[in-house]
Amino acid sequence: MGKKLTSRSEDYSKWYNELVVRADLAENSAVRGCMVIKPYGYAIWEKMQAELDRMFKETGHQNAYFPLFVPKSLFEAEEKNAEGFAKECAVVTHYRLMNDEDNPGKLKVDPNAKLEEELVVRPTSEAIIWNTYKNWIQSYRDLPIKINQWANVVRWEMRTRLFLRTAEFLWQEGHTAHATKAEALEETELMNNIYAEFAENFMAIPVIKGAKTENERFAGALETYCIEALMQDGKALQAGTSHFLGQNFAKAFDVKYATKEGGLEHVWATSWGVSTRLMGALIMTHSDDHGLVLPPKLAPTQVVIVPIYKGEEQLAQISEVADELVKDLRAAGVSVKFDNNDNQKPGWKFAQYELQGVPLRIAIGPKDLEKGTVELARRDTLSKEFVNRDEVVGKIPALLNEIQETLYTKAKNFRDTHITEVETFDEFKKQLKDKGGFISAHWDGSPETENKIKELTKATIRCIPFDRKEETGKCVLTGNPSEGRVLFAKAY
Amino acid sequence: MGKKLTSRSEDYSKWYNELVVRADLAENSAVRGCMVIKPYGYAIWEKMQAELDRMFKETGHQNAYFPLFVPKSLFEAEEKNAEGFAKECAVVTHYRLMNDEDNPGKLKVDPNAKLEEELVVRPTSEAIIWNTYKNWIQSYRDLPIKINQWANVVRWEMRTRLFLRTAEFLWQEGHTAHATKAEALEETELMNNIYAEFAENFMAIPVIKGAKTENERFAGALETYCIEALMQDGKALQAGTSHFLGQNFAKAFDVKYATKEGGLEHVWATSWGVSTRLMGALIMTHSDDHGLVLPPKLAPTQVVIVPIYKGEEQLAQISEVADELVKDLRAAGVSVKFDNNDNQKPGWKFAQYELQGVPLRIAIGPKDLEKGTVELARRDTLSKEFVNRDEVVGKIPALLNEIQETLYTKAKNFRDTHITEVETFDEFKKQLKDKGGFISAHWDGSPETENKIKELTKATIRCIPFDRKEETGKCVLTGNPSEGRVLFAKAY
Repeated sequence: MGKKLTSRSEDYSKWYNELVVRADLAENSAVRGCMVIKPYGYAIWEKMQAELDRMFKETGHQNAYFPLFVPKSLFEAEEKNAEGFAKECAVVTHYRLMNDEDNPGKLKVDPNAKLEEELVVRPTSEAIIWNTYKNWIQSYRDLPIKINQWANVVRWEMRTRLFLRTAEFLWQEGHTAHATKAEALEETELMNNIYAEFAENFMAIPVIKGAKTENERFAGALETYCIEALMQDGKALQAGTSHFLGQNFAKAFDVKYATKEGGLEHVWATSWGVSTRLMGALIMTHSDDHGLVLPPKLAPTQVVIVPIYKGEEQLAQISEVADELVKDLRAAGVSVKFDNNDNQKPGWKFAQYELQGVPLRIAIGPKDLEKGTVELARRDTLSKEFVNRDEVVGKIPALLNEIQETLYTKAKNFRDTHITEVETFDEFKKQLKDKGGFISAHWDGSPETENKIKELTKATIRCIPFDRKEETGKCVLTGNPSEGRVLFAKAY
Repeated sequence: MGKKLTSRSEDYSKWYNELVVRADLAENSAVRGCMVIKPYGYAIWEKMQAELDRMFKETGHQNAYFPLFVPKSLFEAEEKNAEGFAKECAVVTHYRLMNDEDNPGKLKVDPNAKLEEELVVRPTSEAIIWNTYKNWIQSYRDLPIKINQWANVVRWEMRTRLFLRTAEFLWQEGHTAHATKAEALEETELMNNIYAEFAENFMAIPVIKGAKTENERFAGALETYCIEALMQDGKALQAGTSHFLGQNFAKAFDVKYATKEGGLEHVWATSWGVSTRLMGALIMTHSDDHGLVLPPKLAPTQVVIVPIYKGEEQLAQISEVADELVKDLRAAGVSVKFDNNDNQKPGWKFAQYELQGVPLRIAIGPKDLEKGTVELARRDTLSKEFVNRDEVVGKIPALLNEIQETLYTKAKNFRDTHITEVETFDEFKKQLKDKGGFISAHWDGSPETENKIKELTKATIRCIPFDRKEETGKCVLTGNPSEGRVLFAKAY
């Protein structure tokens, strides 16, 4: 515990970094840019995984596992149609360490154990997976293939931040193969919708669904759909992407299928993913200067019970009440912990659970025993009330739902009041500087204009929203004709 | 489908390799020694994971995630007390690919992107984890730490076989830290017992619990406990290990804690793991010449319903019955699939599900509609019976339990009849050659004798069984005094 968390207004970035470490979510490791996800952080990630996995399976996807390594030559095949593909990656060149005779106790790479072909630690798995699909797909009968993989990936990032940008991160990557363009496009949209549903209903994060501009698309994609969220500091965060890959990978890896009609066609592809970056979005959307605030659906512990006592006898009396509550709450499907650890004082525990964002706290002291009450405290509003002991179990499930909804509504209000329509570039710059958030503006559709705006303001086009109203106008920078507004923002 | 599977008696090894591929469990990839785990194989692995994970959490363990890479210097720290540590591993030396100007369209490693310190892809995570625990442990209040990680690991194996030995494999690795030796030993035993319980109750594989000899221990362990299973070809397979690491890692990474009494002590450690190798054990224990045989508790699909029909009308009538069965079976907690795929004939489907080891098959044809029956077939015994349609749902849960038990009993009978006590070395060699299995023999306790026996027979000491009877004797090779029998076998 120790000193207070840096406040958000003081230094938002510092607040985030401190919070992640002090709430026991993650920490930096001995390996540059790689994090350790601590048990409490990992428990939240597991809850996300479980829900996403359920949604994937319900929509007909299966999990599988492909190799960690991608032979360099497979990137060359892909490279042909994805010139801009990131090459900052971890490269395995040797397969043995040996004792270093010149430095006793030290190891060195065995120069005689050089690989014939270098292996890249997967930054994403399109190449290795499409090279495999080639053998799985001959006929229309083999389609569609709808596979997801939970895996670690590595991208050699120079500037890293816990969860938001790390060299190694955990994610899921879906890779599907379809007979027709229409079916692949439908899949791309379906998965983007699943991400949106998950973000809104489970993470309590409102998101805007839209398409990326050509500049911001995944290399090799013909369309990238995304969900964009807004953090409390007014910066946007891309929370998930779903790519329509057309026939690019099928062509790069020569994947054709015999059609029902006897023809031979290239297969249509999609890929889609979300990562441990979502942890960053979760933290930055809801948390406050006291620490983490978690939506009940993702909280590893939804209710904590803290006894306030002097001596063993009082503890025994309180434990009796607490054990009963634990039993009844579990029966009601609530995850609950009774913290009777004698090594820490109640005040320390209160602060700890506040910092870790446990949605509800029940405190029971000697006076509560007399009166038949408990003190029930909400993490999100920091409000407290005394509740009759008989009523507390009945009250809690509804209260958890209420907290879930309150968090969503609060985040949505913030987001909605931070979408600003502007007509001039001066206004654009002023709003971006003063208020941040999404700037809704006309754009002439050219990558050059987009780049110029980025250069001048650091804002990028986050997406072309699917639900934008029909409206022509003039580009905020060039005055050229525009077919509709797009959303700009500075982004994580 | 196509041609028949090679039989076990013809070529056990070929049978295994063919079966893994043809039952759609896994296949080799473009990366030497690395496998693709296909959806059907992965679904079985997921069932194993879910059950193990539940058992770990019930015994107070939490999941976390540590980096994929281990800086070379951390191996040097560990190396000091683990001289024999495997050094065959994937080494990352560079962090960038670039276009190769001399070969248009080709990529090469950027020579300017050499890492200052090489990174090893984790072959196991003791080093990186204990280097992290150092910062987590100051006082007895911080203990115990009981963490598990689900992860991929890489060991540069020269001869690989799907699931049994692959360069990359999936596993879980538990790493715990304790204040006392007794507590660490208790944990080591607890986890070995959990593995045994899982193997016997879920995988239907009988195992022998015991301790490894010094020769066969994990480098750095003071004790390695294990569970040993016996495959149908008479070779043993180590199905899980649990290591008591003493204070070796605490000393290597300088992890001390302040005791309650004000002292400063090194921490006591354990680690334990099972891997996708268990898939190999599962396949080789139960399967037959027709294909995979799966214990119902691990079968992704427990019951498949196959319609036998001519024309749409018949299919519609059968579907009505099948849909009802699916609904009722699901309500009874049975996983069931109705395969109404019109692209394949019933005969093809029968063979496919037999190959994939679905425990129960229900076939419904026009005659069944008339008579109100279904044909119910068991995969393990290949027996069939007609059952009244009204009775089938009530019958199935008990039948699945019966199959689970039958598989276990069958495997246990095989195992028990393949433990042979021998008194002389001639008998040792003869039994090992003629019958295989475990050879129970006296051994003088010396690593030299153990090595000599291995050299002469290829058999190793699989374990010193925990439940061996008290019996002194003479070593089967040297005639020197022995404190008890140990189990020898050829092993995977």
